[in-house]
Amino acid sequence: MDIKNKSITSRDEDFAQWYTDVCKKAELMDYTAVKGFIIYRPYGYAIWEEIQHYLDKEFKKTGHENVYLPVVINESLFQKEKDHVEGFAPECLIATIGGGQELQDRLIIRPTSECLFCEHYSHIIKSYRDLPKLYNQWCSVVRWEKTTRPFLRGSEFLWQEGHTMHASEDEARQETLRMLEIYDKMGRDLLAIPFVKGRKTEKEKFAGALETYSIEALMHDGKALQSGTSHYFGNGFSKAFGIQYLDKDGKIKNPYQTSWGVSTRLIGSIIMVHGDDNGLVLPPYVAPIQIVIIPIKMNEPGVLEKARALKEELANAGYRVKLDDSDKTPGWKFSEYEMKGVPLRIEVGPKDLANDSCMIHKRNDGTRTKYSLNGICDTVKELLATIHKEMYNAALKNLLANVTEVHTFEELKAVVDKGGYAKMMWCGDQACEDKIKELTNATARCIPFDQVPFDDHCPICGKKAKYVVLFAKAY
Amino acid sequence: MDIKNKSITSRDEDFAQWYTDVCKKAELMDYTAVKGFIIYRPYGYAIWEEIQHYLDKEFKKTGHENVYLPVVINESLFQKEKDHVEGFAPECLIATIGGGQELQDRLIIRPTSECLFCEHYSHIIKSYRDLPKLYNQWCSVVRWEKTTRPFLRGSEFLWQEGHTMHASEDEARQETLRMLEIYDKMGRDLLAIPFVKGRKTEKEKFAGALETYSIEALMHDGKALQSGTSHYFGNGFSKAFGIQYLDKDGKIKNPYQTSWGVSTRLIGSIIMVHGDDNGLVLPPYVAPIQIVIIPIKMNEPGVLEKARALKEELANAGYRVKLDDSDKTPGWKFSEYEMKGVPLRIEVGPKDLANDSCMIHKRNDGTRTKYSLNGICDTVKELLATIHKEMYNAALKNLLANVTEVHTFEELKAVVDKGGYAKMMWCGDQACEDKIKELTNATARCIPFDQVPFDDHCPICGKKAKYVVLFAKAY
Repeated sequence: MDIKNKSITSRDEDFAQWYTDVCKKAELMDYTAVKGFIIYRPYGYAIWEEIQHYLDKEFKKTGHENVYLPVVINESLFQKEKDHVEGFAPECLIATIGGGQELQDRLIIRPTSECLFCEHYSHIIKSYRDLPKLYNQWCSVVRWEKTTRPFLRGSEFLWQEGHTMHASEDEARQETLRMLEIYDKMGRDLLAIPFVKGRKTEKEKFAGALETYSIEALMHDGKALQSGTSHYFGNGFSKAFGIQYLDKDGKIKNPYQTSWGVSTRLIGSIIMVHGDDNGLVLPPYVAPIQIVIIPIKMNEPGVLEKARALKEELANAGYRVKLDDSDKTPGWKFSEYEMKGVPLRIEVGPKDLANDSCMIHKRNDGTRTKYSLNGICDTVKELLATIHKEMYNAALKNLLANVTEVHTFEELKAVVDKGGYAKMMWCGDQACEDKIKELTNATARCIPFDQVPFDDHCPICGKKAKYVVLFAKAY
Repeated sequence: MDIKNKSITSRDEDFAQWYTDVCKKAELMDYTAVKGFIIYRPYGYAIWEEIQHYLDKEFKKTGHENVYLPVVINESLFQKEKDHVEGFAPECLIATIGGGQELQDRLIIRPTSECLFCEHYSHIIKSYRDLPKLYNQWCSVVRWEKTTRPFLRGSEFLWQEGHTMHASEDEARQETLRMLEIYDKMGRDLLAIPFVKGRKTEKEKFAGALETYSIEALMHDGKALQSGTSHYFGNGFSKAFGIQYLDKDGKIKNPYQTSWGVSTRLIGSIIMVHGDDNGLVLPPYVAPIQIVIIPIKMNEPGVLEKARALKEELANAGYRVKLDDSDKTPGWKFSEYEMKGVPLRIEVGPKDLANDSCMIHKRNDGTRTKYSLNGICDTVKELLATIHKEMYNAALKNLLANVTEVHTFEELKAVVDKGGYAKMMWCGDQACEDKIKELTNATARCIPFDQVPFDDHCPICGKKAKYVVLFAKAY
């Protein structure tokens, strides 16, 4: 096993400091002169690019098209949907001067784009033939925050926002759940994160939505992180923005709407689900560098040549591979790429030349094993698949061990204080949610899809219970 | 030959209106409620995505890494480099309110990111080992404009901005030219546009740069369009932002800087170089849809099956292909995809079933030829290559026919009024440039790399000539 990396705080000693240390030391981000805004450094941005590639393909496969809408929204347009503007107003950054002149209609820097999409849709949707419209946008959004943390809460983050319009309520509801399922699949296939899927309570849903669904991830410290949302809007915005179409039956109708998004918050999820005391641990399929090759005693004849040939072979097979032939010591390099969470490290030294072998180190469990260089591509393929499975299973095991059924408020408080989900039967009244929040700082994460009632009354008010709900403290 | 599409203005009648008609009718963009800001609709955005894929690969091949920096810049930071702020101040959109509070340090919505990159570089560049830094950013920028035209001049456009730092002046100069060469190659390989490469005059260079290089394209109406720039900064920003590193020789030094960018302006170039009276004509390798398949009499047995099989075969071979099996008439579809500039149209009808044939229409010259469906992938490959070559050659021919050597002011005026480049020997004094601008509205597009002097005095002032310069009216 590896020795703990001394350059970062221990994870169990101070989780918050450990997190910040990893963000900085793994060179994922940096702070900037603009308070609350961060730089996504090459290594952090590259993780986001892998997420983009994965999702963009899934979105296009399901018939979605990318568009780009303005970075600013007139204040007058933003105010068209009442609930929406109320939810976002306190977080708005507002431009008031353009070209040296005071603006008559002030411009809000995009916090989300429902209003712009709706305004556009009102121009291009005229007939049932124009439906559905399945648009997505990759961009950044600005939400003015007082306290910020890298990737988790910042005044600007990168995301995708899908905005779709449908002829029927049924089709729109299906779309809402279809996109949630794509996010969930991304967790299983790419991030090695098991999400809990469910519906948000009225209190926690998106401003202006009729229903919000989310994927929730459980961090190592027992706090939950909302990692993606999908909203069903009904036709409220449609009516507010005058989006109308002529249906087959000759009637004028308002279409039904959804929106859905994930953001660079997912990078925070990856760090806090998988990371350890040596730094980041990246799931293989989202890792910008999947394999790092470290030559040992690289000045001895043949070593560097072997390492280069190996790099070539792996790169040609489609792996994201890096050879570090800089003049740092191997030990220094080991620790650097462990900090960066590179899934596999291959060491090639003079002793390996004769018998065509190498040592392979797995970042996720620290094991180090001798392999033949013969058929190395197959070996690597298997190892990456194994690592992905091991990481997913470890996260799943942690999740399952941290969902606890509670029957009293005291039990709930004990669970959320320790960390993890308190699974509670709930009456459905916001008063009980508010009380829990006030006394424990935990919130209803979701009403999970998996509803198996285990009690008949709400432990907070004693009234009849309607839903199984997961409560937890959250980022 | 095709009949002129009546839904758009004729290109030779009113070029400006033709341009706007094509932008709208080909569904490349739409106007929004935010004055001066446009929507990049799916078809327009998809062209940008093809450009992104091409360039991103080239950038990464040459060692560049993507990053993301804040969308806003503190006014105080922006003011650090004097020439830079003077150039951009009149175009700034400024946020003054955040979270309901007036901001102490106002925030400029990013018009370009030199200042943010420099501030970041000042934190991460400490040693010669940290150089070079080769960063690129894909984002949008805002420049407040009074009069706007889709893709050519707008208050917001999409672009990439590369910002690099180098240990030596020589290396930075090489980088400046290397990136210009990548843009030029993109013209040859992807856009079928021959660019003129050259250096900008002092008057026309970028605010804060020591030297600006550009690629210039010639539009159908004889106006030039600056289509990409690459700047050499020396170490002016380096000094202003305190970027210092310890060199091998133990001395503290300021690194040398470049920046370079292309934007969605390139879409404007494509439209105005290649378009015709039937709409857009897209070069095959940048076309979001390379081939459209139109079934003829598609209710007759076997036709739709054949069309579907053909689509499958071409898609599997890696082509971007669309089958339009909607209930519109074939004639309607022909005109729609001609408007959208799809390079190849394949028609499959009942008569083609027996002898396994199809009709293929080339958008660029309107020819329509019978081909066997046997080996269709090879046929398509050849046809796309032919179209690309034909389009490039046509654009090159037009460019060469519109560069005219001039020896007097009157000759210059006649050339730029008619349209095209006036090639003039220039003394190097800005006064002569100013005079030309004042009297003809033409500007020095560039001092082309290809310098073959043909006269020994400047026709404006009569002094000794130093450079061959291309003057033209420009967008």
